[in-house]
Amino acid sequence: MYNILNNYNDLDQLKKMSFGQIYDFSDELRNFLIEKVSKTGGHLASNLGVVELTLSLYRVFDLNKDKIIWDVGHQTYVHKILTGRKDKFDNLRRHGGISGFPKCCESKYDLFETGHSSTSISAALGMARARDLTDEKYQVVAVIGDGALTGGMALEALNDVGYRKTNLIIVLNDNQMSIGKNVGGLSTYLSKIRIDPKYNKFKFEFNEALRKTNLGNGLADSLKKIKSGIKQILVPGMFFEDMGIKYLGPIDGHNIKEMTKVMSMAKDIKGPVLIHTITKKGKGYIFAENNPDKFHGVSTFDWMTGKTPKSSVESYSETFGDAMVEIASDDDKVVAITAAMKDGTGLTEFAAKFPKRFFDVGIAEQHAVTLAAGMSKGGLKPVFVVYSTFLQRAYDQVIHDVCQQKLPVVFAIDRAGIVGNDGETHQGVFDLSYLSHMPNITIMSPKSTEELKYMLKWSVNQKCPIAIRYPRGGDNVKIHLKPLNDFIPGKWEVINNGGKVALIATGKMVQIAMEVQHKLKNNGIETTLVNACFVKPIDKNLLKNLLEQNYKIITIEDNVLHGGLGSLVLEYANLLNYRASITNYGFEDKFISHGDVDVLYKLYGLDSDGLVEKIIKII
Amino acid sequence: MYNILNNYNDLDQLKKMSFGQIYDFSDELRNFLIEKVSKTGGHLASNLGVVELTLSLYRVFDLNKDKIIWDVGHQTYVHKILTGRKDKFDNLRRHGGISGFPKCCESKYDLFETGHSSTSISAALGMARARDLTDEKYQVVAVIGDGALTGGMALEALNDVGYRKTNLIIVLNDNQMSIGKNVGGLSTYLSKIRIDPKYNKFKFEFNEALRKTNLGNGLADSLKKIKSGIKQILVPGMFFEDMGIKYLGPIDGHNIKEMTKVMSMAKDIKGPVLIHTITKKGKGYIFAENNPDKFHGVSTFDWMTGKTPKSSVESYSETFGDAMVEIASDDDKVVAITAAMKDGTGLTEFAAKFPKRFFDVGIAEQHAVTLAAGMSKGGLKPVFVVYSTFLQRAYDQVIHDVCQQKLPVVFAIDRAGIVGNDGETHQGVFDLSYLSHMPNITIMSPKSTEELKYMLKWSVNQKCPIAIRYPRGGDNVKIHLKPLNDFIPGKWEVINNGGKVALIATGKMVQIAMEVQHKLKNNGIETTLVNACFVKPIDKNLLKNLLEQNYKIITIEDNVLHGGLGSLVLEYANLLNYRASITNYGFEDKFISHGDVDVLYKLYGLDSDGLVEKIIKII
Repeated sequence: MYNILNNYNDLDQLKKMSFGQIYDFSDELRNFLIEKVSKTGGHLASNLGVVELTLSLYRVFDLNKDKIIWDVGHQTYVHKILTGRKDKFDNLRRHGGISGFPKCCESKYDLFETGHSSTSISAALGMARARDLTDEKYQVVAVIGDGALTGGMALEALNDVGYRKTNLIIVLNDNQMSIGKNVGGLSTYLSKIRIDPKYNKFKFEFNEALRKTNLGNGLADSLKKIKSGIKQILVPGMFFEDMGIKYLGPIDGHNIKEMTKVMSMAKDIKGPVLIHTITKKGKGYIFAENNPDKFHGVSTFDWMTGKTPKSSVESYSETFGDAMVEIASDDDKVVAITAAMKDGTGLTEFAAKFPKRFFDVGIAEQHAVTLAAGMSKGGLKPVFVVYSTFLQRAYDQVIHDVCQQKLPVVFAIDRAGIVGNDGETHQGVFDLSYLSHMPNITIMSPKSTEELKYMLKWSVNQKCPIAIRYPRGGDNVKIHLKPLNDFIPGKWEVINNGGKVALIATGKMVQIAMEVQHKLKNNGIETTLVNACFVKPIDKNLLKNLLEQNYKIITIEDNVLHGGLGSLVLEYANLLNYRASITNYGFEDKFISHGDVDVLYKLYGLDSDGLVEKIIKII
Repeated sequence: MYNILNNYNDLDQLKKMSFGQIYDFSDELRNFLIEKVSKTGGHLASNLGVVELTLSLYRVFDLNKDKIIWDVGHQTYVHKILTGRKDKFDNLRRHGGISGFPKCCESKYDLFETGHSSTSISAALGMARARDLTDEKYQVVAVIGDGALTGGMALEALNDVGYRKTNLIIVLNDNQMSIGKNVGGLSTYLSKIRIDPKYNKFKFEFNEALRKTNLGNGLADSLKKIKSGIKQILVPGMFFEDMGIKYLGPIDGHNIKEMTKVMSMAKDIKGPVLIHTITKKGKGYIFAENNPDKFHGVSTFDWMTGKTPKSSVESYSETFGDAMVEIASDDDKVVAITAAMKDGTGLTEFAAKFPKRFFDVGIAEQHAVTLAAGMSKGGLKPVFVVYSTFLQRAYDQVIHDVCQQKLPVVFAIDRAGIVGNDGETHQGVFDLSYLSHMPNITIMSPKSTEELKYMLKWSVNQKCPIAIRYPRGGDNVKIHLKPLNDFIPGKWEVINNGGKVALIATGKMVQIAMEVQHKLKNNGIETTLVNACFVKPIDKNLLKNLLEQNYKIITIEDNVLHGGLGSLVLEYANLLNYRASITNYGFEDKFISHGDVDVLYKLYGLDSDGLVEKIIKII
């Protein structure tokens, strides 16, 4: 089945293969990807789309000196197979196994770690300029998708690239998709280029016609005046040329022969070049071709049928989506904004039911936040739903455009805490720290999916910015916790009142704290369990009471320790001058790599057993 | 002198003025701006550039229903004069006086608060979509400069604007400048358009010629095929048209008649429109026209000579600039990056001496950070110098592209702490909180300009990301503090060892703490003064010693309290289980409005008198 792949050891082999062999190799690589990812889960569709692109690049460029930077990183499976990691795909994205993203520690061919989108042009440009200043000779290539290209920083980079005329090759991998269908004026523009694949033919005909025609003087003069203007007819990628970047394309991103030719040509061009390749996301696997969203990031699946196992519990994202539909049905001021994450955030049904009130702005978190601010000023009730890690992109917009004006915008922050297999670049463990020092913001976190629903309903009617953070996945079904259905800012819930040890947990950690409580009880330790449904403001009255009554206080959160809930509790207790026993549990000051969610909680001692062990020690 | 202005009370009057009167009014407004700003300081050049633009907008649109959003906000002085605030310019930017930026609390005509650049299109689009969903009828206009247009979020917004065809007018105020000369491919492109002001004439001639010429069949066919292509010759703003935005221009931004006509036309166009106006920054004041950088944001000046009083102390920015030149002379790997802030950050001399190692990327902080990451990977030693408030834009890039890979990039963070008169949107009081929870970063702050020099020299040779934060202005000359000239990560300096109260201060606050120490001594209280030159890592050994010896600990920082130095000290002491007396001084959890730096420190009790008073109370 894997004749070529089994004998593949070295990048040099690629260059020696005939076109026939290389196409056979493409097929093998696709089968390998489908087989492996069906068992581990991972990013499938994007990798199927770049098989020929990767092969072409690695035939034309010399990876031992040239630098190729892959945007968003999850399109590097083929790259990993070709650079010595094919035997490690059984442990893809598992703790201790290879990452689903480039990791410099894994291979010398992983040159720059990418995870969030739209960074590759900036990074590549930095390397190219370093090369020029240090008088070295190598090529630098950034591979970026059309989805990632709409991210502001990619556009900032294009603006810089064209200005200084640095030698740099940008390969635009245009599959008309980000995770879902790509949106925006730029995407429409790229479509226009794609629509007419006969540009080259036309160019020839037009030139011929000009040569043969007896032009009137007026027209001839006018044409002379616009030497550069005429170029605009002939060059489809004028948008890029306008920015000072040479445009080559569009070319078929599954045609290795054509790509090899154009890439070789690009190597000799002075200044920045953009190669526009058209690819199909999910190429070669019918289920992925038909459903590239689903097979963007997928759990395990049956490769014969393309079916994924259905989760038995409702996820927070699904609950959020249902709640949004319900809320929006009753209140026509409620609108939803996403940055290219319609399905992942649970908005599919909302988008179908309320197309005019659904806004997918593309990979553009900064714009999304300030758009929400404007909508709020205009009398709407905007909800921006975004993964915790991606809201990092809009830190300034949250503080400067929303909080400063105290605008009622709801941030629904999905994938907070540990997201698991995507690793360092995607863990949502910083949001409490980067949001809680912003004046005017209220931060909430539900202890269950049910509570999320009520929280969201309450939040859309408040008069200030509200962030609601909730985790990946669903509830721990072993426990049912009665949800709060109304909220008073800064008022926590005492779930039950036991001994003089108070477990103050937030969000998903409330469920773990409940397990902790049971296990401690079995060890003869009675505790009081508090649901810190508000991280900001904290419940000062309750805390004061607990402190006055000499409770030992233990905070539990799935966020880094510094700047989070524990930190807020500590600061307040200190302000009151209490010398109480306060212990904070959360993630330490380091990046958390990939692995299954449960494995990572255990590893960092934030599962119930780990917490119980630590708590027993301190009591 | 102000005949028209003195009798001006109402926007309606504007609409009744003849063109003669309105030009006279322009002159008066310019004189008024020059007179007032010469006494208070403020943003002059940008406001002189938009006099006619503002007048035209306010003649064409009805401010009682239409919404006009001004990007970056500092170009709203004319707007403020025209909307009832002309008598308040004597207290411009002073505490209690009017702000130099739009403030909703000042006037119903200030619709959206802007300060950082590139937000206006997003905000305006949000309002326009709110209008459409709530079935209201009004125009929404975003006024944005060509500098601000290169900011990623503005480009993200353009991408969205063109997609949904929302009715929206964007006025591009193209003065070829951000604070200094604008850079980038987009700017080159706009220049190309400007170069030929006869586009309209040409368009006519070309159409006429086409009509009259007897075309060969081949050409006629080709021309037919490219109906949309031919548009590219005729429309100078194809870049915008490609994005789906109707382009009108370029027009003279000082010609009220022309602007009035085009703006009126734009009101009737369906879908988004961009009006490209060409203005001159500093227009009408010769010193500002010749030196728009200097008169962008200016202190008081002599309006007859354009001369500004020279500061007697060297600023941190100047020291930084000198140090960079010195360091770069010895080490050709050192490069400097700025996001459109060459002069403000002190890089003028560096740029002149090392043009190949100086990179102005335009208003593009996100790109700047990841560019630095790439350069670092390529073997250079990049220093990105940026104001504290603007680094907020690149929070994600710092954590995701630099810290995660532990790349040796130096962030020189100017204008940390209170910047004063620019107010809420510009205070640098969040950086310690948003940086200190990032793994792998080292955060330093010098106690004096001299120490900054040594810190910078040391930092460029370390193997991890380092942020050095320093304040606006220079040292308090009353005190000379011997600078540290070498550093060990996490090792603080005990400046002097006195009584069992330890004042632990960072950066500029060390100088204030020294004053505090003297004043406390006069009150019979002996203290120990510590320079927390590292905010991360903190000096655990020293802290432990102090805690073991029962010192009372007082931390002093010019950052918000939550998540800053005090918070780190508290967390560490708590981890050690010390029930010590720790008091944290810093800024409370609110936005700090405009005013002179000293006034604001006093107001928030962080001047030496305020601190002494508070410390005496707790001891």
